[in-house]
Amino acid sequence: MVIRVDAIGIIKTSSSSMEVRKAQHGVSGHIKIYDQYLDGLTGIEGFSHLIVVAYLHQVTPIQRQVLQVRYRRLLHRGVKLEQLPLVGVFCSDSPHRPNPVAVTIVELVKREGSQLFVNGLDLFNNTPVLDIKHYTPNRVIQNISLPQWYKELEDKIVQAEKVAG
Amino acid sequence: MVIRVDAIGIIKTSSSSMEVRKAQHGVSGHIKIYDQYLDGLTGIEGFSHLIVVAYLHQVTPIQRQVLQVRYRRLLHRGVKLEQLPLVGVFCSDSPHRPNPVAVTIVELVKREGSQLFVNGLDLFNNTPVLDIKHYTPNRVIQNISLPQWYKELEDKIVQAEKVAG
Repeated sequence: MVIRVDAIGIIKTSSSSMEVRKAQHGVSGHIKIYDQYLDGLTGIEGFSHLIVVAYLHQVTPIQRQVLQVRYRRLLHRGVKLEQLPLVGVFCSDSPHRPNPVAVTIVELVKREGSQLFVNGLDLFNNTPVLDIKHYTPNRVIQNISLPQWYKELEDKIVQAEKVAG
Repeated sequence: MVIRVDAIGIIKTSSSSMEVRKAQHGVSGHIKIYDQYLDGLTGIEGFSHLIVVAYLHQVTPIQRQVLQVRYRRLLHRGVKLEQLPLVGVFCSDSPHRPNPVAVTIVELVKREGSQLFVNGLDLFNNTPVLDIKHYTPNRVIQNISLPQWYKELEDKIVQAEKVAG
């Protein structure tokens, strides 16, 4: 299936790709919305959070064949790769997945015309944006449950961050 | 920009499109994951909620030109269309938008092999699925704020539902 998508905008951040990768809570930047889509922003001021759907354009065809990954966030904390569980990409944030589409929640700081200034970006500079949606109360799910392997991994990350100060 | 996307699965529900449209909390059904992507599900059991990225294949090229909409949920409650504010598609759930991609949060009831049984679907039968992501605690944003027009609209919907019993 081939679908035609037209980027409605582009991510702009002064942070390097390495800084984006390492930032625990994302980086700051802005989404530049292309002029022909400006009317689509009417009324967006006042929403504190937005959902950004982006196309991870740097992912290669080979990387799109990846189906299982290890959470790599612990690697630079001294944990060895083989100590991490191998899990499906559909329960991971890996950009390596069959359709490299990101769904990122960002904080909207302000709008200036065609620019949406945001915090919490985990997207590289110049990433094409496919869609923006408002983050509404029905997106807040209370009482979620998580598998044991995920809880253990999150515990390890919290521990590693404590040690790192 | 043309990107090639391969549906990783398909939505299956016995609910009609009209039932899906009218259901306030979505309908039940399952996501059938295609065999070649099965490994991507490893470890997904135990997550109570998933994020489904789907391609709204019934949206026409003309509908993709829509940039402003009125929230139509109040129409069948006797509210007139012109009484509803005209807002940008990027702060609406309208399927009519430049790139008709849905981001739906569903409750995972159980997995049976290649089938993920879910509640909360707002997607029609046979909608192609592009991606699945796990819903994790960092998706829960506390203290969100909303514009005045949105709060007024939600109030009206709550009122209308009360009247309807």
